[in-house]
Amino acid sequence: MRLAIDVMGGDQGPRAIVAGSARAVVENPGLELILFGPRQQILAELSRLPQPLAAAASRLVVCDAPDSIMPSATAAWALRKGRSSSMAHMLRSVARGEADAGVSAGNTAALVALARRELGMIKGISRPAISTAIPARAGRRCYLLDLGANVDSPASRLVDFALMGAAMAQCVDSTAVPRVALLNVGSEATKGSASVREADRLLREYANDDAFTYEGYAEGGDLFKGQLDVVVCDGFVGNAVLKASEGLTSMLVERVQMAFESRLSGRLASLLAKPVLKRLKRELDPVRYNGASLLGLRGIVVKSHGSTHADGFYYAIQRALKEVEHNLPARIAGRWQASSCENDGAY
Amino acid sequence: MRLAIDVMGGDQGPRAIVAGSARAVVENPGLELILFGPRQQILAELSRLPQPLAAAASRLVVCDAPDSIMPSATAAWALRKGRSSSMAHMLRSVARGEADAGVSAGNTAALVALARRELGMIKGISRPAISTAIPARAGRRCYLLDLGANVDSPASRLVDFALMGAAMAQCVDSTAVPRVALLNVGSEATKGSASVREADRLLREYANDDAFTYEGYAEGGDLFKGQLDVVVCDGFVGNAVLKASEGLTSMLVERVQMAFESRLSGRLASLLAKPVLKRLKRELDPVRYNGASLLGLRGIVVKSHGSTHADGFYYAIQRALKEVEHNLPARIAGRWQASSCENDGAY
Repeated sequence: MRLAIDVMGGDQGPRAIVAGSARAVVENPGLELILFGPRQQILAELSRLPQPLAAAASRLVVCDAPDSIMPSATAAWALRKGRSSSMAHMLRSVARGEADAGVSAGNTAALVALARRELGMIKGISRPAISTAIPARAGRRCYLLDLGANVDSPASRLVDFALMGAAMAQCVDSTAVPRVALLNVGSEATKGSASVREADRLLREYANDDAFTYEGYAEGGDLFKGQLDVVVCDGFVGNAVLKASEGLTSMLVERVQMAFESRLSGRLASLLAKPVLKRLKRELDPVRYNGASLLGLRGIVVKSHGSTHADGFYYAIQRALKEVEHNLPARIAGRWQASSCENDGAY
Repeated sequence: MRLAIDVMGGDQGPRAIVAGSARAVVENPGLELILFGPRQQILAELSRLPQPLAAAASRLVVCDAPDSIMPSATAAWALRKGRSSSMAHMLRSVARGEADAGVSAGNTAALVALARRELGMIKGISRPAISTAIPARAGRRCYLLDLGANVDSPASRLVDFALMGAAMAQCVDSTAVPRVALLNVGSEATKGSASVREADRLLREYANDDAFTYEGYAEGGDLFKGQLDVVVCDGFVGNAVLKASEGLTSMLVERVQMAFESRLSGRLASLLAKPVLKRLKRELDPVRYNGASLLGLRGIVVKSHGSTHADGFYYAIQRALKEVEHNLPARIAGRWQASSCENDGAY
């Protein structure tokens, strides 16, 4: 298996990306990674790798791509000027079949725009969606999408999100019949915006589809209850919910820590509270630690969090490997064709 | 001071509302509360009050209103059929000046619709907004609005939310010059929906207004950083963020508790972790513990959380008292007039 890696664009610079990549090849004996970025910088980082990781360097192939896309660049700029960037090179190697999937920690808007151009969309899907799995009660998780690739989503796009999310849960988590819900301001049929109510009507038409069950409306709190596998919403809403959850988790963990430190001696607090809180923080920060998937493309692209460290990038690679193993784009394409036959002309 | 209380509509029934009301009169010697609801039920609850609270019963006036609005009722139903409900009676007593403010734990959609009809709107504001203060870092708090009274808010309404939120922060928290931001999917000017970008343009026109500073776009995580006093968004987004935050807090606290219980003996865990976590949960569940304000009305209405207990209802009353003390509607009306003179015809 071979993956393409965009080494540029992470807030921590190429070091974390190279270290995460090295860990991935060490732990996956059949894996080769092509690292796109400025050759000298990558070689310098490779030479700094400690021994257990350095051993795997022969399966890290450097591919010189000196240009990169700034975190502040717009999608329009990336489309016009980003053709020679490490991100575009990485995507083209996926498009040409030289790599089975691509991973980047760079600018999300640029990644969505370039991935759409370089890889193309699955027939019938107009724009990529971004999704990640939110940790929920009882060790379960819930895919939330879209997370910001689309704002002002019409009803038909919300339905696409539902189909893609269901394919994702089936594929990656082996959920036989995912439970899908639509995010709304209340569970009553009369509530919500026109596009959400229309999407609800369309999704009810799939009720006899055996690929997923449609559970109706969900509210924000239902994300964490462990009773839903996929929750669908416009990208503006999903982005706000995801980022608020990240901010809240980090504040909460800090407060719990402070509260314990004020009640226990420093040593006891470190011993008891810190390991528990550290693990919790990691579990509850899904994008930073597992990355997010771009769905609807004719290829696999995983977005690692911009501020990720080596471990986070490693997990993003693992996520991409899982999607390759289950051939997620084919699964989504199959789902979309099935549904557009069943509901010919419905949307 | 006299407040009107809707005794019906809380998930716990009238008991929690009557007990919270009794606590409020005990702790506020000059306060009288008019309790609207089925007389016999209220009298039964009053007779059950334990001694310290029972002493204050003379300042709890019962006003018979046998009908109530179901949690599942729509706003349209409430407007058509809810005229004789305890909620409508409570609101009319505020409208007629018999009470200085009203508090209800009932159906939010019905409360917004009935409050708008019974109290009327401040000139220039078309619909009420709902707001509460979200706890943030360093003991600060941030008002988020709208929380669900409006979906698909146009730019002009987002600007109204900013003015109302700033008045709220000045009034209730004595923040001299509140820092106001607009929720978006990123901090770049090119991002977001058309209405958010237009609201950004309009808010920049107020940059020389000394009533608040406009800080531009905020992302979901900025809510908790303690650097903003007001964050403005459409009600769909605010509702999703608030409910997701409530759900996440409750899951997190549960997980921290479980993690400690598995590492410490039961007794030690109870001793160390439980009091800390209980306090945190209360602090971080703003609506349940402090209620939310309906803004833009010609009168003060506070919505207590439907699943509140006596303490939560007590805090909602305290919030209403604070708004009465600072005459919040007059403050908002003044703000709105000032801004519409400065920017005559701008929106």
